[in-house]
Amino acid sequence: MRSFNFSAGPAALPLEVLEQARDELLDWQSSGTSVMEISHRSASFVRVAEEAESDLRDLLAIPSDYAVLFLQGGATGQFAAIPLNLTVPGSTTDFLNTGIWSLKAMREAGRYCSVHVAADESASGYTSVPAPSSIKLTPGAAYVHYTPNETIGGVEFPYVPETGAVPLVADMSSSILSRPIHLSKFALIYAGAQKNIGPSGLCLVIVRRDLIGNARPGTPSVWDYQAMANEGSMLNTPPTFGWYIAGLVFKWLKRQGGLAVIGERNRAKAAALYRAIDASEFYSNPVAHDARSWMNVPFTLRRPELDRRFIEEAAAAGLKNLEGHRSVGGMRASLYNAMPLAGVEALVAFMQDFEQRHGG
Amino acid sequence: MRSFNFSAGPAALPLEVLEQARDELLDWQSSGTSVMEISHRSASFVRVAEEAESDLRDLLAIPSDYAVLFLQGGATGQFAAIPLNLTVPGSTTDFLNTGIWSLKAMREAGRYCSVHVAADESASGYTSVPAPSSIKLTPGAAYVHYTPNETIGGVEFPYVPETGAVPLVADMSSSILSRPIHLSKFALIYAGAQKNIGPSGLCLVIVRRDLIGNARPGTPSVWDYQAMANEGSMLNTPPTFGWYIAGLVFKWLKRQGGLAVIGERNRAKAAALYRAIDASEFYSNPVAHDARSWMNVPFTLRRPELDRRFIEEAAAAGLKNLEGHRSVGGMRASLYNAMPLAGVEALVAFMQDFEQRHGG
Repeated sequence: MRSFNFSAGPAALPLEVLEQARDELLDWQSSGTSVMEISHRSASFVRVAEEAESDLRDLLAIPSDYAVLFLQGGATGQFAAIPLNLTVPGSTTDFLNTGIWSLKAMREAGRYCSVHVAADESASGYTSVPAPSSIKLTPGAAYVHYTPNETIGGVEFPYVPETGAVPLVADMSSSILSRPIHLSKFALIYAGAQKNIGPSGLCLVIVRRDLIGNARPGTPSVWDYQAMANEGSMLNTPPTFGWYIAGLVFKWLKRQGGLAVIGERNRAKAAALYRAIDASEFYSNPVAHDARSWMNVPFTLRRPELDRRFIEEAAAAGLKNLEGHRSVGGMRASLYNAMPLAGVEALVAFMQDFEQRHGG
Repeated sequence: MRSFNFSAGPAALPLEVLEQARDELLDWQSSGTSVMEISHRSASFVRVAEEAESDLRDLLAIPSDYAVLFLQGGATGQFAAIPLNLTVPGSTTDFLNTGIWSLKAMREAGRYCSVHVAADESASGYTSVPAPSSIKLTPGAAYVHYTPNETIGGVEFPYVPETGAVPLVADMSSSILSRPIHLSKFALIYAGAQKNIGPSGLCLVIVRRDLIGNARPGTPSVWDYQAMANEGSMLNTPPTFGWYIAGLVFKWLKRQGGLAVIGERNRAKAAALYRAIDASEFYSNPVAHDARSWMNVPFTLRRPELDRRFIEEAAAAGLKNLEGHRSVGGMRASLYNAMPLAGVEALVAFMQDFEQRHGG
């Protein structure tokens, strides 16, 4: 029986997508082979690849002056690839520090260029986002980097920072495709696939074409955005199975009605869970209300000695992978696109029952 | 119905592996989730990862003074990562140039260090390997790089070059696990997964531990061998589904009897096909007999205007993906581990029938 899977990533995929993948795993499109057993340059796979890009462009309304790249190495690989492609030695970059993923991106970038912390929420224990007026940008910076949603802290920007002529770069690993965005506000969006896109091992980069073509001489070819754009992301063998699953997920999102419908559903899912937490003295979430994530909801028990029991009883009730991140403990419910409202309702009902039994 | 799939890569996987992956795709180990929907740091996935490494160590008899890394970015990524990890600016490396993949590795390395061509088979049209006595090594080179099997040319070394104290680096993408090797002769072996290991998007690196820990300052963290070895290849989210499939393939190989049995089977498969080619005036293979690949068998028709017809009729007979590489044309039959002898026999029978009908 399928569980409600609250994993922060690799995360739940839509059931319909998994069912299709299963049904055609041994014989794809009557080819007598699996989709993972054919050349990435075959006509049938190239069609998969092109349709995935085209569907993604539809979903996010990506205009033609942006390249869409399907890469390997994850967002952590991009922490290096972005400065290699967008800076020269001595460049300054601005970073908004709102949590562990911001910090990791900043540290890797600091190996290639000068990093200026334009906003720092560490004093709040990473439970807030900066007020727009408090962000101190560097004039002429190579780019401004931020993490719209922090997967571990459960902190999400309710607005897109204004950076004027300075390119805005966003690590959307845990929020891409969760609601509509205004793409033109971004110069570069990147996202590891393993939350809202597909299996791990695939990383999307959506980048304004005028920014590419100036990679540093030592940039590994597979991360040279211009070289990859020229080759349709097939300068080398791409992760074909992940690309195929991503394509099925994009078609599933379109069938749901696109990001306006998905965004409304995600808003409602998060609201239901935060409402249950706030209505209780037993559960709590530390994040400022205007910065609460729709995707990742960390929460703690008033009696932390019950954490293990909560997680085990929830798992037994079919509510899986609710452990908090190893660096912070407690619980975390990730509510990516594939999590239905019914899963959140089941979690809320379980929480209320657990509180009744142990809350005294 | 499953076909006999001669794709050069991504290539056929063992049917038993695909069947198991299909059967548990929606509910893995009674978890109520797919294996691709769980954290790479969960106890159940860590067990998958560790068993895969342990089974690979058994198959190749890898001693503990070698690290085994499960990386992203393919062999082409390693073309950059190897010089970043094993050289300093100004280092000299020796390359044996035996085909298109040697050339690609050499060109990328040349962006990081000085490349010396220690043997060059281009004059033969890449239909041969160098005689051991003709290899001109550079004393004190950082390493010697070669490609034991050239996937496009169908050229395979029948011996392992002797490099004395200089580390030997081998791109085994298309020959790993195809027969037993003496691991101690190699300092570093790397291989994209998509021929003999699993789906594309995973790249194995097996490296002597004394060679790592000196990556250049600008090495992307996800390709810093020491950093990845310290983190069990989980410095970032690995390609979990590919790692899982690789683990199933390793178990399948062990069930077959290991590499001695597999090697004998591969020798017999290749021999059957070369015998059919050599017995005919209609088919030919240009490679020197002592350098013929067990894994990739390119062949041409005496009447090249029939190429398209050959490929189409073969496909209709269930013999798929026999097109030669786009850079050379003709036909190519890849006979990786997952190809049974019955597939080669069916191909030989088809070739004989086609020749009878069109050979006049």
